[in-house]
Amino acid sequence: MEREDVSTGGSHTAVSTTPLSLWNDGPAKTAILDFVERVTTPGKDFLPRARRIAAFDNDGTLWCEQPLQVQFFFGHQRLEALVRKDPELKQRQPFKAYLERDMEAIKRLGKQGLFEVGATAFAGSTEDEFDAEARSWLASARHPKLGARFIDLTYEPQLELLEYLRANGFKIFIVTGGGIDLVRALAEDAYGIPPEQVIGSSVKTGFELRDGLGVLVKQAEIDSFDDREVKVHSIGLHIGRRPILCFGNSDGDLAMLRYTLTGDGPRLGLLLHHDDAEREFAYDREFHASPLADALDHADAYGIRLVSMKHDWRTVFASDARLSAA
Amino acid sequence: MEREDVSTGGSHTAVSTTPLSLWNDGPAKTAILDFVERVTTPGKDFLPRARRIAAFDNDGTLWCEQPLQVQFFFGHQRLEALVRKDPELKQRQPFKAYLERDMEAIKRLGKQGLFEVGATAFAGSTEDEFDAEARSWLASARHPKLGARFIDLTYEPQLELLEYLRANGFKIFIVTGGGIDLVRALAEDAYGIPPEQVIGSSVKTGFELRDGLGVLVKQAEIDSFDDREVKVHSIGLHIGRRPILCFGNSDGDLAMLRYTLTGDGPRLGLLLHHDDAEREFAYDREFHASPLADALDHADAYGIRLVSMKHDWRTVFASDARLSAA
Repeated sequence: MEREDVSTGGSHTAVSTTPLSLWNDGPAKTAILDFVERVTTPGKDFLPRARRIAAFDNDGTLWCEQPLQVQFFFGHQRLEALVRKDPELKQRQPFKAYLERDMEAIKRLGKQGLFEVGATAFAGSTEDEFDAEARSWLASARHPKLGARFIDLTYEPQLELLEYLRANGFKIFIVTGGGIDLVRALAEDAYGIPPEQVIGSSVKTGFELRDGLGVLVKQAEIDSFDDREVKVHSIGLHIGRRPILCFGNSDGDLAMLRYTLTGDGPRLGLLLHHDDAEREFAYDREFHASPLADALDHADAYGIRLVSMKHDWRTVFASDARLSAA
Repeated sequence: MEREDVSTGGSHTAVSTTPLSLWNDGPAKTAILDFVERVTTPGKDFLPRARRIAAFDNDGTLWCEQPLQVQFFFGHQRLEALVRKDPELKQRQPFKAYLERDMEAIKRLGKQGLFEVGATAFAGSTEDEFDAEARSWLASARHPKLGARFIDLTYEPQLELLEYLRANGFKIFIVTGGGIDLVRALAEDAYGIPPEQVIGSSVKTGFELRDGLGVLVKQAEIDSFDDREVKVHSIGLHIGRRPILCFGNSDGDLAMLRYTLTGDGPRLGLLLHHDDAEREFAYDREFHASPLADALDHADAYGIRLVSMKHDWRTVFASDARLSAA
């Protein structure tokens, strides 16, 4: 039996003729290659393209989330601009903690609290204004420790994996706890994923006509905070099918990993372990914003495959790969 | 300048070599053909495929919504089954009115009230159970007056239009006030539209593990009732881009028509007028469930083009077309 014909799609990865050339040989790479071969080869595990749905977390799975998720820095510059207009804001919590980068207070806020600060900071913006501001910021904003631009801190082996899956007929959705429209502002260029395949935390919006233009205006109220079980709800709402492949990196992804893995037929659940202090960061259980503990403890029992950044990846950052290729 | 190469996609319409052969020549057909030519021909109005987003209402736009939306009948048989287990339900409102088809009370409930009855009736079902029940019901359920199955009461000229748009690189979303998962159960077979391109009213769901299977369980609480301005919010949430083409048939579609039409560049907003008492039904302002009044009064001012079922369509129902072709 022969594999079906596939054609490569966009150009969002390092060009290579060997599948997953940026992945070291080992159990993770083998599991991915075997899985894709099974679902694309005529036989008992074959699945039509419509069934090849993959769900990827974003922060810590597709790009760097340390020391804080990128949306923190985006919200921070917005709040600083607001403070220039309204200095009193600096004295109010939780804005004070946020502006002063008071890490203890920020840890207490948690991921949802940070998203709520962002929601307040952007209330009143239209969807187009937000998108323009996000794109402009992303074009130059840099990581405070690594020096590179955030958008160059996507993981090169993951870009290669996305391209490999697309070439094999997969439709890939990002399912992120991050703000849906911040991720949409980068997902097409960075990952080749269109806005309608990005699912994430969102705020309520109101429809208004402003100078004759119909716009959606962001409100300060959270519509959905997509973490843990809520990620599965949002998969149901946006996709309406159970994914067959899921890739995450924290306990926030455990529910969607289990949703994926407990379905019938071939399934693949992957969990990125940040164990590479030299090339990126080494962390898991203690990471306040998004710990990896339950998922790590139960990976075997749940059929989740661990991916070691240190051992399974030949490169880490897209920017490194470009530098070394230059 | 030549049109870009296009290839026809699925097989969800009558085969024809002339575009829109089921549409009579006239201003509506001309407007559609001109619009598609403009956005697909290199020049100032050309748009890449990623921008060719179309939003279609479902009830009354893609299939028959008289005398009540199809979801009423689906909810009705479910409630009848519940009453067999719990006869006391028959005495409680709004179930009593619903079960007795008390039209005055049903009119007072309105579209949202009917959706809430349905939400209560299906609370506790998993997404897979609901889908199986919906598909099984749709396979045989018939329209009370027309005799045909509901799924054969889709509009043939619209199926042809969907196929024509797809062949020209459009990505089509259904944006319905109907329950998202009932419409998903028919949209792929009836319209060639996959579940992830169906947006609609929804209930909250909870993630549970039942006998080792991760499932989404429907709750009785409404998550989103997608009518009027909420349709635009849901377009923002699910698509994240402004459509360039929108097709509706009631005041419930006016907000998304205006959202579509007020954007930059080429735009097309269409409104189906049910003026064909012989072949379907003639109604607009008085239809309790979903009146067409504001949109009709302001169509010209807002740049909305009316489509007359009586004058613009050569055929109406897909089932008629099949019968006459047999």
